[in-house]
Amino acid sequence: MTGGILPQEVQKRLLEEGWTKAGYAICFDCLDGRSSLIGKPPVKDFQADVAEFFGGDVAEHTFGCRGAQFAVMKTLADYVAENGSREYAKVIVTDPLCHYTTVIAAEMAGFELEEAVHRGYPEYRVEAKNFAERIERVKKEKGKLPALIVVTHADPYYGNLNPVKEVGEIAREYDIPYMVNAAYTAGVMPVNMKEMKADFLTVSAHKSMASLGPLGFLVTNFEWAKRTFESSTMVTHWSGRAFGKKIPSLFGCSVGAVPLVSAMLSFPYVVERVRNWNEELEKVRWFIGEMEKLDDVMLIGDRPHRHHLMHFETPVFWEISKRHKRKGFFLAEELNRRGITGIHRGMSKHIKLSTYSLSWDQLKKVKDAFYEIAESYTSG
Amino acid sequence: MTGGILPQEVQKRLLEEGWTKAGYAICFDCLDGRSSLIGKPPVKDFQADVAEFFGGDVAEHTFGCRGAQFAVMKTLADYVAENGSREYAKVIVTDPLCHYTTVIAAEMAGFELEEAVHRGYPEYRVEAKNFAERIERVKKEKGKLPALIVVTHADPYYGNLNPVKEVGEIAREYDIPYMVNAAYTAGVMPVNMKEMKADFLTVSAHKSMASLGPLGFLVTNFEWAKRTFESSTMVTHWSGRAFGKKIPSLFGCSVGAVPLVSAMLSFPYVVERVRNWNEELEKVRWFIGEMEKLDDVMLIGDRPHRHHLMHFETPVFWEISKRHKRKGFFLAEELNRRGITGIHRGMSKHIKLSTYSLSWDQLKKVKDAFYEIAESYTSG
Repeated sequence: MTGGILPQEVQKRLLEEGWTKAGYAICFDCLDGRSSLIGKPPVKDFQADVAEFFGGDVAEHTFGCRGAQFAVMKTLADYVAENGSREYAKVIVTDPLCHYTTVIAAEMAGFELEEAVHRGYPEYRVEAKNFAERIERVKKEKGKLPALIVVTHADPYYGNLNPVKEVGEIAREYDIPYMVNAAYTAGVMPVNMKEMKADFLTVSAHKSMASLGPLGFLVTNFEWAKRTFESSTMVTHWSGRAFGKKIPSLFGCSVGAVPLVSAMLSFPYVVERVRNWNEELEKVRWFIGEMEKLDDVMLIGDRPHRHHLMHFETPVFWEISKRHKRKGFFLAEELNRRGITGIHRGMSKHIKLSTYSLSWDQLKKVKDAFYEIAESYTSG
Repeated sequence: MTGGILPQEVQKRLLEEGWTKAGYAICFDCLDGRSSLIGKPPVKDFQADVAEFFGGDVAEHTFGCRGAQFAVMKTLADYVAENGSREYAKVIVTDPLCHYTTVIAAEMAGFELEEAVHRGYPEYRVEAKNFAERIERVKKEKGKLPALIVVTHADPYYGNLNPVKEVGEIAREYDIPYMVNAAYTAGVMPVNMKEMKADFLTVSAHKSMASLGPLGFLVTNFEWAKRTFESSTMVTHWSGRAFGKKIPSLFGCSVGAVPLVSAMLSFPYVVERVRNWNEELEKVRWFIGEMEKLDDVMLIGDRPHRHHLMHFETPVFWEISKRHKRKGFFLAEELNRRGITGIHRGMSKHIKLSTYSLSWDQLKKVKDAFYEIAESYTSG
């Protein structure tokens, strides 16, 4: 994910300002016992900025987007157990192309997962009505509503944008809590959870906010903030210790100085680049057009495409791999030789790539590389 | 914690080799879908080295030591729910000076926490028999044994070493799973979980293995490895997707390139420094002797002291703070002015500090700084 690349300037500052010196570099000035409350560096203000930037009320940083998703599901699991079991079944309705971390978080929190259906090859589109259908089916089978709806804003397989606003309307109608996983969008394109009518937004800083990993954010509204970020209530029996500033669903405090500081240093750059999203889309669409001029190459997924993650069917490279001594590895290796990294090693029948933040010149170089490789093996 | 400081050389390599370029920098060559299985860089071999170094059979990296502790408790919670509820109560017995992350992990996993008692001021010592007493009391009150014993190897308040081997014997006698939290010891002093008869060892790389955070390790034995690191079994209902390489208790895969690579680069240095533990202890004891020559300054905790975390009662600085315009902040500020960082801002009545890895010259400089500050405010 090219949305995770750090600006050169930020990398330099991390070293020069001493943030790579030790793992706990922000803890010295921690007066309140939770990293999200630190004033120097201004972590607390940064969390508020992040919440505002994504149209939410409260944000906390997490161990990656997976940590944020788990926190949401743990919150809902507790909610169902305490209050909602008459109304809600322990079921989540999600899109059928959600990231694996959504599945794992559901498994950890003890939820069943029900998927809205997609329309299959070649577009794999999911429509809002498919979510409504699945909700109705859960209602019929369990006699209760699902406890949560989760929609992946841009799916990680084809880069399809899901109908997050329409699903938000449906969630409101049924009164089901609603989470949008914006791991592949928040930080690269405009994302506003209020417009989506989402209760929870999960974000991956190392995928899409030009940050080191592991780092994510969980953004929520005032309605859910208190429950989601509820402080520890345990008092140890004998010593009587209590840790009232710590948030259990975030492991008390999701420490990790270097990822967090990298996100803070990159944030102005992220805010700026989101403004140029339309130009990014223009480049994406040009690139798709050029790639599809190659023998039988075809984009899988939404068209016109609305995200920089692209998935191509590439029979031309698959044919080459069959007779190449490096098999499917040849493609990534040929690209590496031309200074292009990021293609998953071993893939040749289908390729997934992201060209986000490449300049027109760089993008043309990538296109030329694919053309050259195809020609060098098929000509003569 | 000075045990978390990275060697200069490692910091340079992180930048020069491109590891600070992007958050997912190790994911390109991931063929199996879990970062702990990656061969290039040799993450898989590194996990095996870590397991061996700490006397265990299998290790996995985690989101900090807190992530490792949660994984252990989640494993035991599932174990009690599935098999052990006739034998085990949902109770953990721990030491009364455990780190707050132990309390939070227990809270997240739904355990009650019962503490062995300490002997109070000024040594705060906990003895093995105190654990046996608490186990007996749980047995009497609940009619079942506690499901887990957790001992913090060196406690985070006074740097006391707990009787981990003796408690290991007790755990064996009762047949209770046993976890040692070595967040403050593994990576700075010799730690061997087999010698402790521990089933689980939790480690903080950013506290004690010269690594960036958040990073920890969970080390276990063959007996518990399969259950602890059990793969995901969820298959999504409609799309039929499964993620059999992912480990739910570790969020599928505890990503985070930069902390992990920093730990790999620092590991040879960590192995080496552990050999010099006796010299470190000699420095610690000299420093305590010097500090206690100051008016009424006294070490709280174990003596002879066996860890580099020291907690002093410092009435001399407390008296100064009462009439200083910067109040309790004066001490950290005076030390900072002399190039000494790491004392928690605002503390003056008690101070906690670690001098690990300081040379004799540097250590004398620290001692001189305390002497100077005490004299400059009390003389005349």
